[in-house]
Amino acid sequence: MGDSDTFHLLRAVALAREHLLLGHGGPFGAVVVRDGTVIGEGWNEVTSANDPSAHAEIMAIRRAAGAIGAFSLAGATIYASSEPCPMCLAAIYWARLDRLVFAATAAQATAIGFDDAMIYREIAKPAGERRLACTHLPLDEAEALFDEWLRKPDRIPY
Amino acid sequence: MGDSDTFHLLRAVALAREHLLLGHGGPFGAVVVRDGTVIGEGWNEVTSANDPSAHAEIMAIRRAAGAIGAFSLAGATIYASSEPCPMCLAAIYWARLDRLVFAATAAQATAIGFDDAMIYREIAKPAGERRLACTHLPLDEAEALFDEWLRKPDRIPY
Repeated sequence: MGDSDTFHLLRAVALAREHLLLGHGGPFGAVVVRDGTVIGEGWNEVTSANDPSAHAEIMAIRRAAGAIGAFSLAGATIYASSEPCPMCLAAIYWARLDRLVFAATAAQATAIGFDDAMIYREIAKPAGERRLACTHLPLDEAEALFDEWLRKPDRIPY
Repeated sequence: MGDSDTFHLLRAVALAREHLLLGHGGPFGAVVVRDGTVIGEGWNEVTSANDPSAHAEIMAIRRAAGAIGAFSLAGATIYASSEPCPMCLAAIYWARLDRLVFAATAAQATAIGFDDAMIYREIAKPAGERRLACTHLPLDEAEALFDEWLRKPDRIPY
């Protein structure tokens, strides 16, 4: 896997550089590969698309899943030019990706001004201790909805 | 804020129910509100859009940021029918939202079959202890790219 890992990871870095120079967003790129074939590529588009969720890994996952017409990317590997932030790492779990390969570390991303480390710390805290103001407002309607989901005969779990 | 919170949260639940019945995905809805005005609505579209990142909160954030033409939602509140998963919680931080209001808990979402709790546990672990196979492959090109970002005079931090 060594040479192939380096090949795909260099592509992720090249995507990051290309779109950095085009002014699309932060210096991040990602590639999703299955059975040796690239099925999705992404780069950071936060500031150009006005989409705070448009990180490279999210975009690569969205495109890969769209390309294969499935919401599971089981069996695939994601190559990221930099260690994923918690949003992207969680998306990797939701996408059921098998494997992650990354080059720069989250600490290095933090050192150039991205908030990955802060968000990792916040997410690990109990809800009441986070800096985000948070209100739990239980509603009967919300509980009834979950029951409705369980009773739905054609529901598709993911 | 009490009545207004209940009003917007009930809208998030109503969106969840409406799109559950339409078969769009899991039973989740979200609304982003700024200055009393709804600027973005979302519902789960994972299985219908074949997009593992298409959770209600992500979709509401994407639409709200697109609607106001900015990548920051500072000053806004997000109402979620269910406590956000780590992906969505991290997106809330990246979007600089001021406040989160939710109805059902992550434990309740886990109880009806969603993996929120597992992903919260995984993300809190050191990288080497996660169930996701993970390879750190440092590349000179990736480090050079971060330097290039810092030297870019017109870079837009976020």
